[in-house]
Amino acid sequence: MLFSPGLDIDARFSLARTLAREAGALALTYFNIRENLIVETKADPQDVVSKADREVEQLIRAGIAAAHPDDGVLGEEYGFAPGTSGFTWAIDPIDGTSPFVNGIPCWCVSIAVLHDSQPVIGVIYAPCNEELYASALGQGATLNGKKLELDRSRNIRNGVTGIGANHHVQSDVVGAMVVNLLNARGTFIRNGSGALMLAYVAAGRLVGYYEPYMHAWDCLAGYCLVREAGGSFHPFPAEGEGLTKGAPVLAACPGAIDDLRELAALV
Amino acid sequence: MLFSPGLDIDARFSLARTLAREAGALALTYFNIRENLIVETKADPQDVVSKADREVEQLIRAGIAAAHPDDGVLGEEYGFAPGTSGFTWAIDPIDGTSPFVNGIPCWCVSIAVLHDSQPVIGVIYAPCNEELYASALGQGATLNGKKLELDRSRNIRNGVTGIGANHHVQSDVVGAMVVNLLNARGTFIRNGSGALMLAYVAAGRLVGYYEPYMHAWDCLAGYCLVREAGGSFHPFPAEGEGLTKGAPVLAACPGAIDDLRELAALV
Repeated sequence: MLFSPGLDIDARFSLARTLAREAGALALTYFNIRENLIVETKADPQDVVSKADREVEQLIRAGIAAAHPDDGVLGEEYGFAPGTSGFTWAIDPIDGTSPFVNGIPCWCVSIAVLHDSQPVIGVIYAPCNEELYASALGQGATLNGKKLELDRSRNIRNGVTGIGANHHVQSDVVGAMVVNLLNARGTFIRNGSGALMLAYVAAGRLVGYYEPYMHAWDCLAGYCLVREAGGSFHPFPAEGEGLTKGAPVLAACPGAIDDLRELAALV
Repeated sequence: MLFSPGLDIDARFSLARTLAREAGALALTYFNIRENLIVETKADPQDVVSKADREVEQLIRAGIAAAHPDDGVLGEEYGFAPGTSGFTWAIDPIDGTSPFVNGIPCWCVSIAVLHDSQPVIGVIYAPCNEELYASALGQGATLNGKKLELDRSRNIRNGVTGIGANHHVQSDVVGAMVVNLLNARGTFIRNGSGALMLAYVAAGRLVGYYEPYMHAWDCLAGYCLVREAGGSFHPFPAEGEGLTKGAPVLAACPGAIDDLRELAALV
């Protein structure tokens, strides 16, 4: 990668952290009044989370447009607006809408910035636990300012692997993921937010994360975090049309990546 | 159930809430310095969590012994000491030791009080989110003082089911649980703490929770919470030797219980 970090990336990194916190605070407001909104407006819970999703994405898009109007922006709610600067933001305003809508405190704001189709900035903010995960190319990864460095002794047998799935994935495939991981003497969690579980990989809380189908806005911030913490990931096809389509996602610490590639048949 | 609530249960309910908060604060201290303890003492992470588990259980046992010396106490770390008052406490000092040891903020303190083998008090405290779930027979269930009442319109198709497993359960059984639930158009999470997921059922965050093998100290506080919030559960064999052995655990909201009994083959 020949990208040279400089003021361009530093200003965007600072903005990404600011926007993640602001977006998280707005989303948390909706989360905390979620039940009242559903009751008062007689709205479907899904409508409430969709409204929160849209407003949070608008907040982030407005912040980007004001500071970097020539950047491209890809978001879960409002799609892809290409830019001319060479930078593209990939944002998931609320990753983990199922936990969010059900009142479970496992969801996050995910903001990535790509350059040459590679994530050069990855920021994830989990408002319910006030955790800010931040990373930029060559600058390492931090959790609330504390440097994250993956432990090379961890693997799928002495750590926990995160898994995810959605309606794009057949039941039998999910079942086989679970059985294969357990048979390999691993164990798993699934907290409902893929981006947050990728942040947990960067923090060494999980040894890896695998989901057969995710979108760019779900995974690219987490990928940047994992790489900067010393782990690796299965490349996401973020060029051209790939940017708006789904793909398998796998990221892990050094001692788990080969085993998980094999289990996920991504060798 | 002919048990008549009165001062006996009220004093114990108040004590259970106090002890859950105090135990949670002590456990949180260990959680926050976990990494330093592991590095400084060159201890195995499992030793650190075991030390925390033991100290937290001792704190709870000391509180019970001071106020109700004739009560029986069953705890995960120090086993069963029968009493003569007719009340037995079942305590899990840290439920979710895997999340705890890995730094994931999904673990809790679980305290139940049984009378005539039925849970008459159930208190669960999740320190990382400062959530106190409290319930007593005939008094309903609350989360941080707010009354919990289960929504009769929720079921496995429009809500999330929690699942759990451990080394007592075969890989294929876990895989089949996942496949059967997905085929029934459900979805699942597993956050690593069965007691916390049972509390989530009482709070309406999950429509149900199923684990093929749990101990009394893991599930009885959650069972009391779910019943008092308007849900139901598969009876735990808490009499005689059953109290110290494992059994299948299933609890759910009214609209999910029958489907989950069928999926778990607990009809």
